[in-house]
Amino acid sequence: RFPMKQEKEPIYSGIATYLRTPYIHLNEAQDYDVAILGIPVDYGTTVRSGQRFAPRAIREYSFYNYAEDEMLFDLSTDEPLTAARLLIGDLGDIAVWPANPEKTNEAIIQTVCQVRTTTFPFIFGGDHSITYATFLGCKQALDRQGQMPLGLLHFDAHLDVDEDFLTMPRVHHGNVFGQLIREGHLQGEHVVSIGIRGLDYLRCARFAKNAGIKQYTAEEVRKHTLETIMNEAIALLKNTCRAVYVTFDIDCIDPSQAPGTGTPVFGGLLLQEVLPALRLLSQLPVVAFDLVELSPSLDTTGITTVAASEILWQFLAFGLAI
Amino acid sequence: RFPMKQEKEPIYSGIATYLRTPYIHLNEAQDYDVAILGIPVDYGTTVRSGQRFAPRAIREYSFYNYAEDEMLFDLSTDEPLTAARLLIGDLGDIAVWPANPEKTNEAIIQTVCQVRTTTFPFIFGGDHSITYATFLGCKQALDRQGQMPLGLLHFDAHLDVDEDFLTMPRVHHGNVFGQLIREGHLQGEHVVSIGIRGLDYLRCARFAKNAGIKQYTAEEVRKHTLETIMNEAIALLKNTCRAVYVTFDIDCIDPSQAPGTGTPVFGGLLLQEVLPALRLLSQLPVVAFDLVELSPSLDTTGITTVAASEILWQFLAFGLAI
Amino acid sequence: RFPMKQEKEPIYSGIATYLRTPYIHLNEAQDYDVAILGIPVDYGTTVRSGQRFAPRAIREYSFYNYAEDEMLFDLSTDEPLTAARLLIGDLGDIAVWPANPEKTNEAIIQTVCQVRTTTFPFIFGGDHSITYATFLGCKQALDRQGQMPLGLLHFDAHLDVDEDFLTMPRVHHGNVFGQLIREGHLQGEHVVSIGIRGLDYLRCARFAKNAGIKQYTAEEVRKHTLETIMNEAIALLKNTCRAVYVTFDIDCIDPSQAPGTGTPVFGGLLLQEVLPALRLLSQLPVVAFDLVELSPSLDTTGITTVAASEILWQFLAFGLAI
Amino acid sequence: RFPMKQEKEPIYSGIATYLRTPYIHLNEAQDYDVAILGIPVDYGTTVRSGQRFAPRAIREYSFYNYAEDEMLFDLSTDEPLTAARLLIGDLGDIAVWPANPEKTNEAIIQTVCQVRTTTFPFIFGGDHSITYATFLGCKQALDRQGQMPLGLLHFDAHLDVDEDFLTMPRVHHGNVFGQLIREGHLQGEHVVSIGIRGLDYLRCARFAKNAGIKQYTAEEVRKHTLETIMNEAIALLKNTCRAVYVTFDIDCIDPSQAPGTGTPVFGGLLLQEVLPALRLLSQLPVVAFDLVELSPSLDTTGITTVAASEILWQFLAFGLAI
Amino acid sequence: RFPMKQEKEPIYSGIATYLRTPYIHLNEAQDYDVAILGIPVDYGTTVRSGQRFAPRAIREYSFYNYAEDEMLFDLSTDEPLTAARLLIGDLGDIAVWPANPEKTNEAIIQTVCQVRTTTFPFIFGGDHSITYATFLGCKQALDRQGQMPLGLLHFDAHLDVDEDFLTMPRVHHGNVFGQLIREGHLQGEHVVSIGIRGLDYLRCARFAKNAGIKQYTAEEVRKHTLETIMNEAIALLKNTCRAVYVTFDIDCIDPSQAPGTGTPVFGGLLLQEVLPALRLLSQLPVVAFDLVELSPSLDTTGITTVAASEILWQFLAFGLAI
Amino acid sequence: RFPMKQEKEPIYSGIATYLRTPYIHLNEAQDYDVAILGIPVDYGTTVRSGQRFAPRAIREYSFYNYAEDEMLFDLSTDEPLTAARLLIGDLGDIAVWPANPEKTNEAIIQTVCQVRTTTFPFIFGGDHSITYATFLGCKQALDRQGQMPLGLLHFDAHLDVDEDFLTMPRVHHGNVFGQLIREGHLQGEHVVSIGIRGLDYLRCARFAKNAGIKQYTAEEVRKHTLETIMNEAIALLKNTCRAVYVTFDIDCIDPSQAPGTGTPVFGGLLLQEVLPALRLLSQLPVVAFDLVELSPSLDTTGITTVAASEILWQFLAFGLAI
Ligand SMILES: [Mn+2]
Ligand SMILES: [Mn+2]
Ligand SMILES: [Mn+2]
Ligand SMILES: [Mn+2]
Ligand SMILES: [Mn+2]
Ligand SMILES: [Mn+2]
Ligand SMILES: [Mn+2]
Ligand SMILES: [Mn+2]
Ligand SMILES: [Mn+2]
Ligand SMILES: [Mn+2]
Ligand SMILES: [Mn+2]
Ligand SMILES: [Mn+2]
Repeated sequence: RFPMKQEKEPIYSGIATYLRTPYIHLNEAQDYDVAILGIPVDYGTTVRSGQRFAPRAIREYSFYNYAEDEMLFDLSTDEPLTAARLLIGDLGDIAVWPANPEKTNEAIIQTVCQVRTTTFPFIFGGDHSITYATFLGCKQALDRQGQMPLGLLHFDAHLDVDEDFLTMPRVHHGNVFGQLIREGHLQGEHVVSIGIRGLDYLRCARFAKNAGIKQYTAEEVRKHTLETIMNEAIALLKNTCRAVYVTFDIDCIDPSQAPGTGTPVFGGLLLQEVLPALRLLSQLPVVAFDLVELSPSLDTTGITTVAASEILWQFLAFGLAI
Repeated sequence: RFPMKQEKEPIYSGIATYLRTPYIHLNEAQDYDVAILGIPVDYGTTVRSGQRFAPRAIREYSFYNYAEDEMLFDLSTDEPLTAARLLIGDLGDIAVWPANPEKTNEAIIQTVCQVRTTTFPFIFGGDHSITYATFLGCKQALDRQGQMPLGLLHFDAHLDVDEDFLTMPRVHHGNVFGQLIREGHLQGEHVVSIGIRGLDYLRCARFAKNAGIKQYTAEEVRKHTLETIMNEAIALLKNTCRAVYVTFDIDCIDPSQAPGTGTPVFGGLLLQEVLPALRLLSQLPVVAFDLVELSPSLDTTGITTVAASEILWQFLAFGLAI
Repeated sequence: RFPMKQEKEPIYSGIATYLRTPYIHLNEAQDYDVAILGIPVDYGTTVRSGQRFAPRAIREYSFYNYAEDEMLFDLSTDEPLTAARLLIGDLGDIAVWPANPEKTNEAIIQTVCQVRTTTFPFIFGGDHSITYATFLGCKQALDRQGQMPLGLLHFDAHLDVDEDFLTMPRVHHGNVFGQLIREGHLQGEHVVSIGIRGLDYLRCARFAKNAGIKQYTAEEVRKHTLETIMNEAIALLKNTCRAVYVTFDIDCIDPSQAPGTGTPVFGGLLLQEVLPALRLLSQLPVVAFDLVELSPSLDTTGITTVAASEILWQFLAFGLAI
Repeated sequence: RFPMKQEKEPIYSGIATYLRTPYIHLNEAQDYDVAILGIPVDYGTTVRSGQRFAPRAIREYSFYNYAEDEMLFDLSTDEPLTAARLLIGDLGDIAVWPANPEKTNEAIIQTVCQVRTTTFPFIFGGDHSITYATFLGCKQALDRQGQMPLGLLHFDAHLDVDEDFLTMPRVHHGNVFGQLIREGHLQGEHVVSIGIRGLDYLRCARFAKNAGIKQYTAEEVRKHTLETIMNEAIALLKNTCRAVYVTFDIDCIDPSQAPGTGTPVFGGLLLQEVLPALRLLSQLPVVAFDLVELSPSLDTTGITTVAASEILWQFLAFGLAI
Repeated sequence: RFPMKQEKEPIYSGIATYLRTPYIHLNEAQDYDVAILGIPVDYGTTVRSGQRFAPRAIREYSFYNYAEDEMLFDLSTDEPLTAARLLIGDLGDIAVWPANPEKTNEAIIQTVCQVRTTTFPFIFGGDHSITYATFLGCKQALDRQGQMPLGLLHFDAHLDVDEDFLTMPRVHHGNVFGQLIREGHLQGEHVVSIGIRGLDYLRCARFAKNAGIKQYTAEEVRKHTLETIMNEAIALLKNTCRAVYVTFDIDCIDPSQAPGTGTPVFGGLLLQEVLPALRLLSQLPVVAFDLVELSPSLDTTGITTVAASEILWQFLAFGLAI
Repeated sequence: RFPMKQEKEPIYSGIATYLRTPYIHLNEAQDYDVAILGIPVDYGTTVRSGQRFAPRAIREYSFYNYAEDEMLFDLSTDEPLTAARLLIGDLGDIAVWPANPEKTNEAIIQTVCQVRTTTFPFIFGGDHSITYATFLGCKQALDRQGQMPLGLLHFDAHLDVDEDFLTMPRVHHGNVFGQLIREGHLQGEHVVSIGIRGLDYLRCARFAKNAGIKQYTAEEVRKHTLETIMNEAIALLKNTCRAVYVTFDIDCIDPSQAPGTGTPVFGGLLLQEVLPALRLLSQLPVVAFDLVELSPSLDTTGITTVAASEILWQFLAFGLAI
């Protein structure tokens, strides 16, 4: 059941925790099936920032997914909502150093490791550089529990495998998976990237191929359907990994549905295919989920936050096999 | 022919009536084929309001559909515009009580009944709660003229069949058709809802099925084409009803094309399929048309008002069989 | 001392309670010196709404006033901040009926009475109609404690003493003090209104004079200084009342500093005079404070929320004599 | 009395004529004390345009000045509103040629002359270039009626006396009074410009002095009060002219109160002094009034339209001696 | 190779030339493969303007396409970028007369002719009226070089073949190709228009057919794929012309991906099909390219400028056969 | 004279260098009287960022200050513009490391030192943290030239003398002058801070007093006039320093005139007093000037960029004694 506040109130009222779930402390996380954790940083963006404001925007908007002590139903698929049995708690945001990525990464690793040890981390970025540390935090926890190897299912317009970019921090939103692979934390063969498109440096394209990353371009998704490709990706990850981290860069969605992000690329995935495809994740041993790169103030119409909200909810409701 | 103002002027100039048609009084309505009526309320919205400003926004924007004493042509379908023979008048907006839905509903029923008695009501909401009263107004007029039963063709992301929602007015934008059915004004079997998607309470999904509402989800539209589904819907309504009320909730359109609405849901219909499908309505005895839930200030790019404007015009030009 | 969260974090991070104070339940209010209470309604506005979103906006923005376990200092007046000793808790928002003002008023009266019985209610509206009920809630509590009469110090561009306005709810943002006086809950002689300007119906101007309301126009403030006028107002209220309710309509501020409100009027007060003047309130037995009519989305630059935030903080820090 | 629509309705509803006055044709103008005329052009702007949308924005916003069959009262000055006896009609907008200033000017001259012959033209620009033609239209009418010379009272940040500007139309918003003077239609000695500030070409400053224009800078206004300066200006114009045209460039107001204009200059006049000063105009034989340079979309907060609306109303209510 | 600035800097920094290419003078154009030329006018728009700000917006945004001395790779098509060998220079904007289309057209013709004589003009409008003059400028240059006839490949929602529109300039954004054909500069049979949809005057539809313009509606694109239609168009133009001018009206794109334009029409092309199709242009002897009708301030989310930027880059990188 | 581009063009056209001055390289700086240098960083902001976009916004907007080969005149002060003799060049922006303040500071120090050695650095921030390095760069140059001590004239709402703030970079926008003083680069007695107001930590207020910083609060400015206070400040700096660095934090201006900044505080200075006061700077040996903390996207009306532009121009035109 959803641990919603008892009083009936309009869904725009009250303190903005995610879905109005309880505001909990780290040592209470173990009592919940899912623990929300925000990471409000944007030092890793190469151009337009504002991702630091995403965790609060997602919580604020989550009033749309409001649910009381009642059964919900998915009209699109004609089935009741299985998520209603989840106990969700909101940890608030991690303490970050807005201009010190290294120090922040250490703190993220430690906190996410602690959360992952007892429950499911549901993470709101921040720019994509956070996944360096959230992935490592999960890996530490799973290592101890003997659940390795940890694979990566990666939705994005970009490969994010660049090298150091002269003026950026060591880990930034364009090199996060390059760093994890080069440092030996992640094998390229355990990575599936979906939604890839647009231009990149030749060196990056070569790195991804050499590392063995399985790429599905947005064009391939349009040709073969996302369902087909997800089934392939799931089969691949199931065969090679015992646990999977899912990272969702909102810029994998087309700018017509998600304009509020720093580096939009046209020709992206559409929510009509992404939402049902997220359900297939229940077939995978997903151990953490993050949504990154939402920059609310870049979208004055607010629909990018709506899109993020629908993606998060869909995963919780149908994609999380707890 | 269009009773446009005679002077040539740029289309952003002049007093903003719909399409610059004459500003008429209620007792002149009988001289026109179509009578515009705005209902500027938003007391029925559960979250984000501003629908009270939609009638003026639609009139203001209607300059794009400008036409003089000349023949128009639809480039998309390669045919001349049959609407040019319609005589259209603009009644302005009904007097409403912004925090007294019951009293406003009485006034709407009476006015719409009067308009429907002599001409075609073309209604600009307001939130979807207005359709409770506009439907009843039409029903009263048709009852007297022996044109019953009156069916409902309903474009929406939502079913709008909830029960009382504790903190909302008796009739609100989420229970309007539930109320009409429960009160015996409308039979569920006479309702076709197109574009349905997303989450709802289990109780609502059950109510709709039990009541016999014919639902077509947006997903089904994508699978079978809107043309096929509209033809089915038209056959169903023709078989069972002598008159049909068409209600168009702008949120049936995908947020990428219509972000300016209070409760957007992704995966919606697209105008490329909706516009041609509206032409099929000329096969039905449509007796009134409303467009609801447009909230102009929620869309700073203005395209939602453009979308509403194209829908309204397409129906007038090709879907209205007068 | 401030009961702030212990962890160091950037002030845009974390769950948005007011000033990051604890999120408390009604039965904990007695343990705090000040209890925050939001009332997210806008049914009482005659034109442009959105005031329902103000409580969350104030909490979100309050990160600017962030303070840890340290002494603060007011640079403008060269003195340390006495508020640091206050224990503040955030009750969240009251459950409201967005289209049922009467029912909402009953709930407000009961809740505010309960809060006022044990601590200081610090109220975030909502449109000005809420003050009808918040005033009555305080009055009930004070009546029991023998602290009557309860006077009203009213900052506003408008008198808010109109009669019923045909299409509005019984109590709306334009007649709230007219209603309180006509119903015998408040004596006109116990009301001081500051910042009055612009046009009103002749009937309202006459009512205010006949009722004995002491009015200070914004023009008089410019002529005599707000300090002089506040001293006069304080003397008057001290002489006639044993307790004072302070209501602050943000539209008393000039639109150049507070554009985000429904019915702006130029020629208003300026924060450079309002902020120091709020300190004089420490000479009065103030028993509750509300800030109303902030409509965040009407001000895309956000400075109206900044203005509201500075006013609230200034009162807490220097104007509240606890 | 105000010829308002009889039905009671919320002030955001209905067809947007100015103050909901009747929408009239040119040959009805003689039956009204004041005739509204919009001139939606912006070909005369040197930088940022959008002034073509001002007439509709002013009409739309004028709901704030709503008045029924009741006496109004000015709270700022403690006096009843004398304007209530005016009969106002709204002519809509003149037909303009958006890229042909010469042709548009001819049409403006003819129409304004016709209006001025029987009633008071109350003109909504458009950029300041329109005043070339509106002034000439009035002059033609007054010439026939022997009411010459016609002086000019000019509120502006700029002198608007430049020469041809190479890439602009012959008459543009920066040379309009230079043109009128150089062509012999207006004597520099009959011009008073108030609010002048900022930079201009040396040639312009010299022209204004040589032509005998009486300039009052915004700095002088701050030093001597606007009341003093208006009294001087009125005395000067009364001595030398039998009729006065008042032109109000909204950029004479400080950008803090009027950001929505194409060429803002800081250090401008403030509405708290402008509004009372407009009343002094009742001592002058004012024969027409225009408000120009409002560009609504440049001010997302909308307060510039509010400012324009207050200025227009104040003049109508207290400054127009009919 | 790209003649980028040598210093490494974040891509939002520095002087905004297109892609940070050198800022060159007209007499240097011959040293470059491609010469950027902005034409900042909007006198030719019938409704909403702001196209004058497009050239600067495109340059400002072009930081996304940043490339150094490195090979780039197209992830969507799995191929290296051939454009890297182009030498690009930015001429800045042409000097225009903002309210004198005739004079501006003369200047455009002369400048474009001069540029076309030695290099490839890559033109940023401005409204679509500019193509009248840019086409003529190219034609003059090609005439001298014996490369005629010059055909036109036209992407647009509109036919742009109207006659004089009473209140508009002689050449405006709605009649530009009608003018070129009627004046004998262009043969209808040498024109292919892609993306056509919505309403037009019957007279325009007839003119286009009589003139022999080959039209492909957006609906036909959806039915047959853009690739098929482009191949047809290319075959047609190759057969009949020795050179082709490509004009790209951003409103050919659907408003969901390109809301920032003056006259949006729903049901447009999508970038996922437009971007690959632009590559087919390398099979044609394209002699100039313009992108018009972008009005940046009409799209507060900025994605229209992103769309324009991707189109421009895609053509440069893969569609330009130099 | 101003080295403007020769062609006549509308001021919104062309490549956006500051005032359309030549785009120069570092080794050409010595040929100019003033060298523009942008520093696009915002890592030093504690809350709302976007200051990285300020240098381009200032250049873009500088079209308003357009001047050709002609004499200009200041209407406010009735005097010709002496700046016209200045030769200005635009260096573009320095290469920065957006998440590495230390490395960026080193680069700034080196570049500014080089510029200061031969000409006058006119610097566009960036957040206020940049002044740490720009001040040190100037100091190094002046040290070599024996022009020490170098004082600081500081316009700001804040003291900016905090210590390390746990989660921020070593030098941030809140401790920049604290760092300079504690590290011995600047003596507190050589600092004058004008416009101070609002709240700060007690530790900061004490530090400023102990260090001997001369503070003038905004309240003191209102009481004594800015002219008086500037004269005092100038006398003080003249007595103690041989050179003065002027740093202008745009948040010293009131939010009504400058909403587009990260940490606005009400009760600020107004441009009507700031602009004339900047002229007094010609009495001081000013060796560099920076304007910081402008965040353009936080002000959708754009007036903050206008304010910054007027301040910059006023200093160049009348305050720079070269
Ligand atoms: Mn990514
Ligand atoms: Mn990405
Ligand atoms: Mn609905
Ligand atoms: Mn709906
Ligand atoms: Mn009030
Ligand atoms: Mn008020
Ligand atoms: Mn002017
Ligand atoms: Mn002006
Ligand atoms: Mn076109
Ligand atoms: Mn077009
Ligand atoms: Mn500072
Ligand atoms: Mn500051």
